[in-house]
Amino acid sequence: MEMPEEVAIVASATSRFTKKEPSIFGLACHPALKIFQKTKIDRSEVNAVILSTCSMLQYASSIVCEMLGLRPNKSCRIDNLCNSGTSAIISAFSEVAAGLSDCSLVIGVEGTNNNSAKRLEWDLTRGLFNHPVHWASLFARSHMRRFGTTEEQMASVAVKNRMNSSKNPLALFRNKITLEEVMNSKKISDPIKKLDSSYVCSGSSAVILASKEKAKKLTDNPIWIKGIGQKTTCASLSKLLSEDNTGLTSTQEAARQAYKMSRMRPQDIDVAELHDAFTINEIMAYEDLFFTKKGEGGKFVTQEQLSINPRGGLLGCGHPIGCTGVAQAAEIAAQLAGRAGRTQVKGCRTGLIHNMAAAGTSSSVLVLGC
Amino acid sequence: MEMPEEVAIVASATSRFTKKEPSIFGLACHPALKIFQKTKIDRSEVNAVILSTCSMLQYASSIVCEMLGLRPNKSCRIDNLCNSGTSAIISAFSEVAAGLSDCSLVIGVEGTNNNSAKRLEWDLTRGLFNHPVHWASLFARSHMRRFGTTEEQMASVAVKNRMNSSKNPLALFRNKITLEEVMNSKKISDPIKKLDSSYVCSGSSAVILASKEKAKKLTDNPIWIKGIGQKTTCASLSKLLSEDNTGLTSTQEAARQAYKMSRMRPQDIDVAELHDAFTINEIMAYEDLFFTKKGEGGKFVTQEQLSINPRGGLLGCGHPIGCTGVAQAAEIAAQLAGRAGRTQVKGCRTGLIHNMAAAGTSSSVLVLGC
Repeated sequence: MEMPEEVAIVASATSRFTKKEPSIFGLACHPALKIFQKTKIDRSEVNAVILSTCSMLQYASSIVCEMLGLRPNKSCRIDNLCNSGTSAIISAFSEVAAGLSDCSLVIGVEGTNNNSAKRLEWDLTRGLFNHPVHWASLFARSHMRRFGTTEEQMASVAVKNRMNSSKNPLALFRNKITLEEVMNSKKISDPIKKLDSSYVCSGSSAVILASKEKAKKLTDNPIWIKGIGQKTTCASLSKLLSEDNTGLTSTQEAARQAYKMSRMRPQDIDVAELHDAFTINEIMAYEDLFFTKKGEGGKFVTQEQLSINPRGGLLGCGHPIGCTGVAQAAEIAAQLAGRAGRTQVKGCRTGLIHNMAAAGTSSSVLVLGC
Repeated sequence: MEMPEEVAIVASATSRFTKKEPSIFGLACHPALKIFQKTKIDRSEVNAVILSTCSMLQYASSIVCEMLGLRPNKSCRIDNLCNSGTSAIISAFSEVAAGLSDCSLVIGVEGTNNNSAKRLEWDLTRGLFNHPVHWASLFARSHMRRFGTTEEQMASVAVKNRMNSSKNPLALFRNKITLEEVMNSKKISDPIKKLDSSYVCSGSSAVILASKEKAKKLTDNPIWIKGIGQKTTCASLSKLLSEDNTGLTSTQEAARQAYKMSRMRPQDIDVAELHDAFTINEIMAYEDLFFTKKGEGGKFVTQEQLSINPRGGLLGCGHPIGCTGVAQAAEIAAQLAGRAGRTQVKGCRTGLIHNMAAAGTSSSVLVLGC
């Protein structure tokens, strides 16, 4: 399927990520209000609203619509754990591409006290090892054993992303950290340390998608959604594990689909948001997204051709579960439109978003271009 | 927008509705398993799964996929209170129409103990009158006052739908009731009586949507989704109320959209599933869907040209919140395909589905045709 330049992201905004627990509804409205204030998009243009959150709130999307003064046709809530945000964006994309909406608002929001991704309670095969850090340590050990990936290489992912987030005024963590600090931080599940891990926090982000015709009216800088890939493998870790446990088949398959649909290759990507829930995830994503060869992810951390996680990733910005995929897309859209502020990557024209859930049991990949 | 014969419902099945509280996951699988057993559709064909439920379950769609042996691309959960089911179907429609999936499974499921629609807790303007029966009594009184609609006319909706559900082996209520029984049943909120009210129960239903090309391979009887309408007005009852409180603007607007897209008129509809949460809702829907003139809904109950709620509606079948919209679509698809069994309406070729939430703060209307 090819659908070049049919649906665009025409606006995006993100809240300041925080450890505080604000009202979810107020938080959800925040980035949308920023968009209505700062762009020429009027509330009356929005005819669909999709809310991405794992927060268990009754009729949440309709309430947010009312608080924002919106009376859209479609309004609903979508959740898919850590992979919710891109699932919502892809649903919105589809409704625009199908002609049911010409202007759709996607809001991702989560509160820091949402426990939905802190323990993966449905999967008894994980036994007592049901915290995400347990699968991270399993993947890390496997990657170290098979490819000689080092704890220092993983730590340098955290150093890089915290360096990036130090420039991002919306990030949870604004201070840089050193390799020594990561290496000396508390071991949570060997070899994963505290500073190898992202932090579940409060945050919200919004993007507006529009049809080709509408996009040209609403912005001078439409960012086109050129490629979409999605794969759900299974919900159980025991079924997910392959022979070597060093890659995620859901990410690989989603990436293949997204590159094919966009007619792009890995080397065409200028800027990417990777789902770095733990440092090992970013190293694995280098390989699963075909930026580097299998086994060479550890060495790829120091490359400088492709800008990865310029806003600071989940490690630097924090990880508000249902918001993360939307925030990733908001960042790439801002980068390609040249409005990323202090984290702006110069001259980027093609971007990629990688979002996933629960040890990669599901993944989404988007390719965006200007 | 016109999109005739692009996306079809190629299969549907529904569980027996019950007051028992089975495992939500097992219940969710039940109708999909029926489809895989009874049709030539193979699991490998399904490349998207959308789960419609208001049950608060972590990563529910991925778990259901794994239990069913499915490894789709897209999988997520959608909720929109009582209007969840059609929201999920419209999302699935869009993904097929946009070319992201050529075969999508939508499952609606709810347990009887889910309280999400029993009290509408978000809306403080409802005060202590936050049970759905309170808005039903308000609408009923207004309709009676303005148009002379009678309690007997409302009661006769319940008699008709329970007559229909007595023939439906999957319905919660299999016994017929008389006008006297409805009139003498306990008053809950004047003039709404117990037998004017639907019952929140456990149930699940599934439909499979396919692209034009795929539909022709999977079935000899594709049922096309010809018209779609949706409207979200607001989440607050105080904002919803119009001067006379005898109609739902969200339903009227959704109906206009669906008729326009399908190029059908109200008089073209042969069979319809209306959201009869309370008897007054069916009478109002006659008017809001333009089957009869404003104010004449009470008299319309006895008409026989158009078959309304042949499976028994929510009043006869029960109302498993996140399942209801899917069950309505499953019924209309079965009717038009001539496989509705003992509730089959002879010779029907065009059907309509009306699904709504929370006093009509949001509504969806679908027009299907063979």
